Amino acid sequence: MVKKVLVIGAAGMIGRKLTERLVKDGGLDELLLHDVVAPTPPQAPFKIRSIVSDLSTPGEAEKLLVGRPELIFHLAAIVSGEAEADFEKGYRINLDGTRLLFEAIRKANYRPRVVFTSSIAVFGAPFPEAIGDEFLSSPLTSYGTQKAIDELLLADYSRRGFFDGIGIRLPTICVRPGKPNKAASGFFSGIIREPLAGQEAVLPVPKSVRHWFASPRAAIGFLLHAAKLDTAQLGARRSLSMPGVSVTVGEQIEALRRIAGDSVARRIREEPDATIMKIVEGWPRNFDTKRASALGFRADASFDDIIRIHMEDELGQKTPAPQRGRG
Amino acid sequence: MVKKVLVIGAAGMIGRKLTERLVKDGGLDELLLHDVVAPTPPQAPFKIRSIVSDLSTPGEAEKLLVGRPELIFHLAAIVSGEAEADFEKGYRINLDGTRLLFEAIRKANYRPRVVFTSSIAVFGAPFPEAIGDEFLSSPLTSYGTQKAIDELLLADYSRRGFFDGIGIRLPTICVRPGKPNKAASGFFSGIIREPLAGQEAVLPVPKSVRHWFASPRAAIGFLLHAAKLDTAQLGARRSLSMPGVSVTVGEQIEALRRIAGDSVARRIREEPDATIMKIVEGWPRNFDTKRASALGFRADASFDDIIRIHMEDELGQKTPAPQRGRG
Repeated sequence: MVKKVLVIGAAGMIGRKLTERLVKDGGLDELLLHDVVAPTPPQAPFKIRSIVSDLSTPGEAEKLLVGRPELIFHLAAIVSGEAEADFEKGYRINLDGTRLLFEAIRKANYRPRVVFTSSIAVFGAPFPEAIGDEFLSSPLTSYGTQKAIDELLLADYSRRGFFDGIGIRLPTICVRPGKPNKAASGFFSGIIREPLAGQEAVLPVPKSVRHWFASPRAAIGFLLHAAKLDTAQLGARRSLSMPGVSVTVGEQIEALRRIAGDSVARRIREEPDATIMKIVEGWPRNFDTKRASALGFRADASFDDIIRIHMEDELGQKTPAPQRGRG
Repeated sequence: MVKKVLVIGAAGMIGRKLTERLVKDGGLDELLLHDVVAPTPPQAPFKIRSIVSDLSTPGEAEKLLVGRPELIFHLAAIVSGEAEADFEKGYRINLDGTRLLFEAIRKANYRPRVVFTSSIAVFGAPFPEAIGDEFLSSPLTSYGTQKAIDELLLADYSRRGFFDGIGIRLPTICVRPGKPNKAASGFFSGIIREPLAGQEAVLPVPKSVRHWFASPRAAIGFLLHAAKLDTAQLGARRSLSMPGVSVTVGEQIEALRRIAGDSVARRIREEPDATIMKIVEGWPRNFDTKRASALGFRADASFDDIIRIHMEDELGQKTPAPQRGRG
């Protein structure tokens, strides 16, 4: 039974939701939250501590391991848009930070479970109709490159027995709550989130663009499933594409119209952006996630469900006839 | 026309052969040779300089770029056996050294061609019957991990326009001349080289083991072809598996018997080594190198030819009815 958990990147959207869920599920002795900005620790019937530091500063990762957490979630990264705009910062945070963490664990000489959030950005066009489990990583962004390198390190450190790692390639998380971040993928959430909040949203790509989605609720499900999975089943291939929902932007908008009505769906304004289109063109559209499905990871049932989950979890709205996810 | 060339890893077997060939082909103004041990510069009708340093020491890579070589061959690495035995050294030389070089080129702010020797060790079992151009890199050694990471960096730095990179995944080079090195693959050459030299050779794996080979002569051909290739043809996927010859150890021995006679072939003694067998089991056996073939890279014609090339190039022997390689 895992008693001490460390969440790195705890102040981010996924980090906060994971923390909430860990507190709700209970059973821990200690939860350590880390980020570059102070994570807000919730009330919990066990000890919660926060550490604020830059993981890419040598010596900082070691401090997180003093209590020897048996389970480490490593969610920290700067997003794709920022890593593309600032080459050095991207490599420093997304590669060096992760490597310093892995090195610190190696030198601490115990063998925790490490759950690492990778990304479908490790793949780059041209693609097959659906990306299978043996398709090469050929990223078209520095962010994707950094995540692909982290996956290779995760596998080698696990093979060597320094820790017990699993990398999960999250689909694009949709609907992201809160304000837009610098990710080039931000509009995929914006076109649902803003109209539901009564605001106009900008769509920078054609409606024919197809992409791969999971709700925040599904993402937390992946993380918790990865934390308790028997990793002997993984063999040497420690990173997995997570199941998701493949829809076009047009289908996203139709789902919004079905659930929230035409007046809401009409709050989306098309305003083509060549830079974003160029980035998005290189992104995956669809996957065949046999391995992850066989290992028990479960996607949302539909994009309609993804919208309903947003309305329930973020807007506190009961939605009509919710079709539950399979997981 | 390329006038200034830098060879990193010039003291190694491939580096020495490449240097010889560059001198023979002529047409350069300057050739700069680098390694951790002093490369022996041959006589040449142009300027040859040697620099001895450790590329993984910060600041050293910059010194190699002072003359702004337009073509850089990066061949330097510690071999698989050593990278597996010494985890820290492997990452320092094979990852940090390469990254420091790439960073130095980025900061030098010009755009040389970089030809990087990668390895089929980026692939790990389980494999399809023949590994195609879209098969994932899932290395089973730290050496393979380091090379796979270098490939990702090479692609990203090229995409960003910092240099014009191409990575070539060499088959196992056979027959390696000279003394055995620490590579776990050493026996593939030893079982040909030692018997031809009148010595006994040890075979640590079963004769059914299949593997993927190229002669040193073919390898030099790959490097020179990569140096002049129109890299626009590569798109974002900057690393390629090179064509080779797929044979079993038993077929290697039969070829030796055909060319040098039974008394030579009988100098191979079977002595199973569980450690080497375990490493070799995870190695590729066969490839489908469509991309490289379409781009004009040419393999040896047969394993018989690979033996004949060794006898001609290393032993100065005319071989009977040499069947020339296609390249």
